[in-house]
Amino acid sequence: MSITNPPTRPSGLDALFAPRSVAVIGASASPEKPSHMPLRNLLRNGFAGEVFPVNPSAESVLGVPAYASITDVPAPVDLAYIVIPAEFVLDELERCAAAGIPCAVVAVSGFAETDSADGRSRQQRIAEIAASSGMRILGPNTNGLYSTPASMSLGYNSAHERTFTRGRLAIISHSGALFSAVAGQLEQREVGLDTFVSVGNEADVTMLDLVEYCVHQGESSVIAMIMESVRDGHRLRGLADDARARGKTLVALKLGRSVAGARATVAHSSRLAGSSAAYEAWLEDAGVPLLDSLESIAGLASIAEHSPAAVRRGGLGVVTYSGGGSALVVDRASELSLPVAELGAETLAALAARLTRPAPLMNPLDMGAGIPLAESYEALSAVANDPGVGAMVVFLHGMQTPAVNLMIARAIAKSQRDTGVLHVVIAPGGVSCEEHDILSDAGIEVFTNTALCLSSLKPLVQVATYEVTTERAVQAETETLPEGVLDERRSLELLARWGIPAVVPRLVRSAIDAHAVADAMGYPVVMKGLVDGVAHKAEAGLVRLGLESPSDVVTNFTSLEAVIAQLSPSGGDIIIERQATGEFEAFVGSSRQPGIGHVLVAGLGGVYTEAIAQVVLWSVPVARDRIRHKLLDSPLGRMLGRLESENPGVTEQFIDVVDRVQDMLLAHRDSVDAIDLNPILITTEGPIAVDALLVASRPGGTPP
Amino acid sequence: MSITNPPTRPSGLDALFAPRSVAVIGASASPEKPSHMPLRNLLRNGFAGEVFPVNPSAESVLGVPAYASITDVPAPVDLAYIVIPAEFVLDELERCAAAGIPCAVVAVSGFAETDSADGRSRQQRIAEIAASSGMRILGPNTNGLYSTPASMSLGYNSAHERTFTRGRLAIISHSGALFSAVAGQLEQREVGLDTFVSVGNEADVTMLDLVEYCVHQGESSVIAMIMESVRDGHRLRGLADDARARGKTLVALKLGRSVAGARATVAHSSRLAGSSAAYEAWLEDAGVPLLDSLESIAGLASIAEHSPAAVRRGGLGVVTYSGGGSALVVDRASELSLPVAELGAETLAALAARLTRPAPLMNPLDMGAGIPLAESYEALSAVANDPGVGAMVVFLHGMQTPAVNLMIARAIAKSQRDTGVLHVVIAPGGVSCEEHDILSDAGIEVFTNTALCLSSLKPLVQVATYEVTTERAVQAETETLPEGVLDERRSLELLARWGIPAVVPRLVRSAIDAHAVADAMGYPVVMKGLVDGVAHKAEAGLVRLGLESPSDVVTNFTSLEAVIAQLSPSGGDIIIERQATGEFEAFVGSSRQPGIGHVLVAGLGGVYTEAIAQVVLWSVPVARDRIRHKLLDSPLGRMLGRLESENPGVTEQFIDVVDRVQDMLLAHRDSVDAIDLNPILITTEGPIAVDALLVASRPGGTPP
Repeated sequence: MSITNPPTRPSGLDALFAPRSVAVIGASASPEKPSHMPLRNLLRNGFAGEVFPVNPSAESVLGVPAYASITDVPAPVDLAYIVIPAEFVLDELERCAAAGIPCAVVAVSGFAETDSADGRSRQQRIAEIAASSGMRILGPNTNGLYSTPASMSLGYNSAHERTFTRGRLAIISHSGALFSAVAGQLEQREVGLDTFVSVGNEADVTMLDLVEYCVHQGESSVIAMIMESVRDGHRLRGLADDARARGKTLVALKLGRSVAGARATVAHSSRLAGSSAAYEAWLEDAGVPLLDSLESIAGLASIAEHSPAAVRRGGLGVVTYSGGGSALVVDRASELSLPVAELGAETLAALAARLTRPAPLMNPLDMGAGIPLAESYEALSAVANDPGVGAMVVFLHGMQTPAVNLMIARAIAKSQRDTGVLHVVIAPGGVSCEEHDILSDAGIEVFTNTALCLSSLKPLVQVATYEVTTERAVQAETETLPEGVLDERRSLELLARWGIPAVVPRLVRSAIDAHAVADAMGYPVVMKGLVDGVAHKAEAGLVRLGLESPSDVVTNFTSLEAVIAQLSPSGGDIIIERQATGEFEAFVGSSRQPGIGHVLVAGLGGVYTEAIAQVVLWSVPVARDRIRHKLLDSPLGRMLGRLESENPGVTEQFIDVVDRVQDMLLAHRDSVDAIDLNPILITTEGPIAVDALLVASRPGGTPP
Repeated sequence: MSITNPPTRPSGLDALFAPRSVAVIGASASPEKPSHMPLRNLLRNGFAGEVFPVNPSAESVLGVPAYASITDVPAPVDLAYIVIPAEFVLDELERCAAAGIPCAVVAVSGFAETDSADGRSRQQRIAEIAASSGMRILGPNTNGLYSTPASMSLGYNSAHERTFTRGRLAIISHSGALFSAVAGQLEQREVGLDTFVSVGNEADVTMLDLVEYCVHQGESSVIAMIMESVRDGHRLRGLADDARARGKTLVALKLGRSVAGARATVAHSSRLAGSSAAYEAWLEDAGVPLLDSLESIAGLASIAEHSPAAVRRGGLGVVTYSGGGSALVVDRASELSLPVAELGAETLAALAARLTRPAPLMNPLDMGAGIPLAESYEALSAVANDPGVGAMVVFLHGMQTPAVNLMIARAIAKSQRDTGVLHVVIAPGGVSCEEHDILSDAGIEVFTNTALCLSSLKPLVQVATYEVTTERAVQAETETLPEGVLDERRSLELLARWGIPAVVPRLVRSAIDAHAVADAMGYPVVMKGLVDGVAHKAEAGLVRLGLESPSDVVTNFTSLEAVIAQLSPSGGDIIIERQATGEFEAFVGSSRQPGIGHVLVAGLGGVYTEAIAQVVLWSVPVARDRIRHKLLDSPLGRMLGRLESENPGVTEQFIDVVDRVQDMLLAHRDSVDAIDLNPILITTEGPIAVDALLVASRPGGTPP
């Protein structure tokens, strides 16, 4: 069958995910060659469209007529899959583009990942061909893709040889090699696949292009990114919103979370992994839950695929049949920051009325070994119906007789059916076939590993409780910032305009001027020298603290002039500030992270910053509630909390500072690279910034 | 067969672990009753000794002749297993003791765990019967035990119905209910069992009695405690040393690690879980590795049982076939604080010589997908032979063809055989049967879960790298401390005798005296009022800082006298100290934790203590190297490190303080309950304690 005059030719990524015809350029007839595998896998998995091997030295490959060149193929080709040596790829892509093929996959290595000039320039050309022709190109350095809706396996990972059940899980991965590993996990959990795409080097089609397709068009309900880094945080954040709006769960497994892991990732690819803490904070704020393991992808997908019940907004309800199980579940939930619900008064009353034995009525609810059977259902459904419970975790020891175990399984199934709240089961010792059937018929997932169960469940809880930050209306600033590093005086002046409390520096021109200014200000004062290009003033001898008298001021003015003269032939400025004294020091700052954009950061200041190494990070924009929530849970938040009794409102005042820095970032979006308010003294009158540094870039110079 | 005139009757725990005859008191003839199960399980599992059901209303149970009373049994009974209602247990125990039975198990509930006066008093009587008769009693509230060497299953958990392969894993558990859960895990990992004992309420036989038996006499090689709390830290520490000396691995799974988890544990039993951080620090110092999950018990046991290779002192060597796998392994290892080895120059040279492809030569070593096959063995064995590598982790994607996967499996097996270094495999997607056979024949364990693999392996790495702290010779102090809370002056004086740098308080009797003392000392000075029973002086208005002049001193002396008079009719003392100024504040202290004994603790002082909530804990005795090691890895250690450039040696000076507090604790072992040196100012002259509190108890009053 040859397709002629197709009604509409698919364009762009439609041609990638659902092509009606595929050409495999470089398809080898020798079974032992890797380039033989993609065509074999394509044929084996029942692809319904037209298939065209392109191979100048074979009449046919695997029984399919072959063509000497892509230009010889007598029918429209939607997707060209290219497996020829890297040095021939560019010419072939030109031919494909000329033939009007909407999409190509470059499934060989030898490009930017080799870190060679040749490789980088070849990859650059791929991007140019895509841009000029409009043909979308996946790769290079991808091992292909797999789509069950299209019955299309196109690649040479051993997983491409398998036939997957159609499921609702899409995986978009920076590591194509992990496909087999995930595939085995899916098989073990009896869960299907929608799509797996190995992203490769992203010369043209990026991870987010593929995610966007899956969010907007595909039929998947769980979209998992296995990623090294993000290229466009703003876009990912929008996709996360879209996914939630469509009832889809978008999650990320970040490769290279530790310093050592990041090193392993760097060695693997040409991308930098970025700061792991910044990524995690950013993804969490953006509403993209992080998975902690490869295994939890299949765990999450199995819950999502099999369960008819939903996770509501709320914490975990935990029911077990021994205190040992309660502790195991709750300990791990705590490590994962998964909240365990507090039961409401109505639930406690219901439990007290329904349960005959004197179990401590709390969550986790330990039913004990000797519970009358009818009470299992009563207890489970009462906990599941608690308005603070979003999902149920039942820990089965399997210590009872088979008959009792069966009745417990039935109670769990009935509780999920009646309450509509998702139930999952942890049974480290496994369950009998009969129990498994009852639970599996009800769509209840059974895990033998407590940690895996909870980390698989966590994204669903996070999505259910995520609150969208509506971007506030901050008028874009029309004034252009001077480019480069702004000194303390100019930074503080600018910040003061945004309502950020700061000392007011006074520029002084002479010792007499300084004397007069200090007298008017009141002692003690601080005097600082500002020299272009000197960011660390204290180390350069440019900061004089605790000047108590006019003579101190005059002497130090003179000696500062001398230091400035030594540091810079063009001189500098001298400023005087009232010396503030605080209970302790904090800092607030922002930095632009590659790929993800602006990140706000706050923490304890001065010498404690590095020693304690526990800062709070937020992505921009972030809601005030979330600023508060994360701040309160940090050392800085606890320090502020300790001051509240003598200084009521100091925490909210500090949140103001963070929020106003955010306002400023949003207004100057493209032109601020970094802000440092360090230190901010926490005084009895509230926080006050006593030094600042603002780094501005050309507007539009660095994309956010 | 009846046993008469046994050559020697087993005593104590021999009779529990290897009885030659067992009486089941309360064995029911009705199959549906729980009290039917122990006898059935005992018979079913092929116990070779004599079995005597005791049941006044049956002629026989399960075909075995029954006796109306234990006194009617015509042969010596080694072990009496009692399953009758709690209110009849005491009489029965008396009868057993009178009959000279060496060991009994009370396998019913209704004792201290009910938190009732009746229950507690019954349990107390059990302890008294054991003490007075010499009969050892396991329980009450235990569900029994299982011993494969004795072919003895004695209990009513459903796991007691199973027949286990004989293995080398002993589990001593505070939660009997977890037996089935563990049993399922063992089955899944095809690993055998030596012994499982449910400890119950420990009226007589304690968890450590059972651990001691397993360490000294049993044939197990892995001894896992599933525990809520320890009762005797000193003894456990000795058992950990004994276990290491015998090549056994003693590990602990602590139930109730989180606050919420501890609450779940408290509800379960009459024991308190104690501070989780103190426990973890203590166990680590004591050489008892902590497991993070139930599943890792079976994981650890499977490695220990199956592998002929050993873990050496060193970090992990990691070899993978894709960068994605490297990152997954290293990220998790980092979370678990499992070191990844740095390869030595010789190894790097060997790799460079043997590998043909330009892989980055580092650990983790990413071999890539296209590696020539012969090189797998070369790479694996080179990394395994690195002197810094203690164990090998190989991550398999399974993305290659079956033939290639088989050759990799053979290379792994050969590398373990040739190097003698333990290899484990992580294959999230599973391995083929052929690969499994090759690896399993070589005793190489395959995990599908990365986290589980690493947490199972971790105890072996920890034991291999553990350094014993030899208890130093500190002469026991002959002087007896005054009982109760010592005030600042007396505490500081005592501490100064142990070489701990501290301010020297001078007692002053009058304003004139104060004036003279302050003049001699030099200003500024601090004046404090000491009143018996007032521990928090500042809050009580008893601390006057920054007194700059004689008149300050006189005025404050008078007002302090007034405050003291108000606080206490019997008056108090007034002291003067030179006011020290420091860069920052720290604290060192000790406390006696229930069950585990003295714990040393240090951290940032003042307001930062609670806000940062990152203190360092050490158990006593601890080697100076370990004090240093843990201190350096803490916020306080980093703060001290920042001062080193201007104040060289300040870190070692601080370690001195901790070490001298330890000396003092060791000398006064039984009579110090708590020490608080808070704050310790870190000054340019080194650390100096400016306040102290010592709480002494009657010698021998509270066991350590």
